Amino acid sequence: MQKYSPKFIKSLSDKKNRKASGVFVVEGTKNILEVVESDYVIKQIFCTKEMYNSSERLLGKKKSIVTYLEAGEIKNMSSFEFNNTGIAIVEQKENKPFEFKKGEIIIALDEIRDPGNLGTIIRIADWYGIKKILCSPSSVDLYNPKVIAASMGSFCRVEIFYTELEKSFENYKHPIIGTFLKGENVHKYSFPKEGILLIGNESNGVSEYLEKFITQKITIPRFGKAESLNAGIATAVILDNWRRN
Amino acid sequence: MQKYSPKFIKSLSDKKNRKASGVFVVEGTKNILEVVESDYVIKQIFCTKEMYNSSERLLGKKKSIVTYLEAGEIKNMSSFEFNNTGIAIVEQKENKPFEFKKGEIIIALDEIRDPGNLGTIIRIADWYGIKKILCSPSSVDLYNPKVIAASMGSFCRVEIFYTELEKSFENYKHPIIGTFLKGENVHKYSFPKEGILLIGNESNGVSEYLEKFITQKITIPRFGKAESLNAGIATAVILDNWRRN
Repeated sequence: MQKYSPKFIKSLSDKKNRKASGVFVVEGTKNILEVVESDYVIKQIFCTKEMYNSSERLLGKKKSIVTYLEAGEIKNMSSFEFNNTGIAIVEQKENKPFEFKKGEIIIALDEIRDPGNLGTIIRIADWYGIKKILCSPSSVDLYNPKVIAASMGSFCRVEIFYTELEKSFENYKHPIIGTFLKGENVHKYSFPKEGILLIGNESNGVSEYLEKFITQKITIPRFGKAESLNAGIATAVILDNWRRN
Repeated sequence: MQKYSPKFIKSLSDKKNRKASGVFVVEGTKNILEVVESDYVIKQIFCTKEMYNSSERLLGKKKSIVTYLEAGEIKNMSSFEFNNTGIAIVEQKENKPFEFKKGEIIIALDEIRDPGNLGTIIRIADWYGIKKILCSPSSVDLYNPKVIAASMGSFCRVEIFYTELEKSFENYKHPIIGTFLKGENVHKYSFPKEGILLIGNESNGVSEYLEKFITQKITIPRFGKAESLNAGIATAVILDNWRRN
């Protein structure tokens, strides 16, 4: 019943092959159990007998698309050194047009490039109850295996929209908040009920063409000498300050 | 004048070769400029003429140990795909015995395994003005190239001590704070002036044998459904709450 060859599965680490096939890989026990409970359409699950047995309550519902493999065989198909439990082949969702809803806090990512950072930000968003992330079109692909792995299953609960940020911002009526070296201290700023948190690119910060949309510059106060915090860390600290309000 | 061969430099990604030679590699412009300004002893700097010229104010002081190479040659010796500017060979510091000083906030890491996590935590510590990190002996090695790279130069300002945590904790008189699912909300907890923040291992949390030393359990409040936050993110959010007090 094996529909997908190890070679094909390995090829899905490349964006153009994901685009051509419309599927992506979800790796490791935690991520697979999350995707089984989500509304993603799963095409096939490769896993060890041990993984199936230990999670039969969830995996049992998908028995018809489960193929047992040995740990070594899983490892050979995997993009990750440490995955020897399972790989699922899952249909990508279409990029839907984005709409604002009342009362939402939204994250916007301006050209985020590192897959680990995007995955981590998805996980952080899910922790802080943020349901939507806007990514500029040139940001790293959600279906990159490293994004999916780093999200630890949270990609199933947070919607990602690839969209021209300036178009989404143009008619937005609520605060658009960006991090800068000289902005209002997040420990003192009174965050709004709804708004957008704009996070800049890892190397270059927020693009110039987006700066004019920012209605509030904020700063995470520094007590030592590091030059900056990474994008994921900054997102978490700001959301923690936002949510405590 | 080239004392170190590309083969030797590559071999330093392996802990046993670092241990045998007593040196480690510092890669990329930012990290090299930081180490030049620190009290680390640098044995040799390989860099492009362009990197040297653009940072002559700092690198000029080390001219006698600079060897120019082409970008492609740097790339060939590097552990990282994107480093084509420079590599420094630096003497490791000895692991000094640890002593507490009055008024300090200290981070203790219980078996942290991921080099990116340790490097990120060093950078966060440096942002929040924390000067000492205790690591249990089986934690990942500070001189792993991925730790150094992720620390973005902050390894020059934060001291790392490998030590049996229980011995350091035994006679400690101030609060030892640990993150748990059911602890006091960090948004409400009144952090002490001095104390230790104990961060558990990525998969297993805080070891059982260390739990008895914890005087305060704390929790980062969750507003969504992610199961956890990673060690670096949790450290940053807690320190941000600690420092705002």
